[in-house]
Amino acid sequence: MTTQTYTVAGMTCGHCVSSVTEEVQAIDGVTDVDVDLATGRLTVTADKVETDAVRAAVQDAGYSLVDG
Amino acid sequence: MTTQTYTVAGMTCGHCVSSVTEEVQAIDGVTDVDVDLATGRLTVTADKVETDAVRAAVQDAGYSLVDG
Repeated sequence: MTTQTYTVAGMTCGHCVSSVTEEVQAIDGVTDVDVDLATGRLTVTADKVETDAVRAAVQDAGYSLVDG
Repeated sequence: MTTQTYTVAGMTCGHCVSSVTEEVQAIDGVTDVDVDLATGRLTVTADKVETDAVRAAVQDAGYSLVDG
């Protein structure tokens, strides 16, 4: 199991956090997702975290990864 | 038909707008709802707009009326 952290830009409220969490949780193999609104920090736990999949999920939610 | 405008505090994104719109639209007799994120302006059209019901709906969505 691997944990990887990212920074998400553009989240402004709890609805945004929910949207990002749902999209990232839907990625195959992801077992845990934590999103912190204040810092934009996204923490993903999976057998093998695929950054491309995380980036796509965050974009599907309507936000973007910073430096990702 | 009457149209009444209010100002909603605390909305930060389109999800917030959707939440407020849904709650206010659910009020009996309301036929049209418009929410502007940039200004916080909420416009309600109904046979008779009941401010107490609008205030309650906005609070149910997690926000508050300004001066209302």
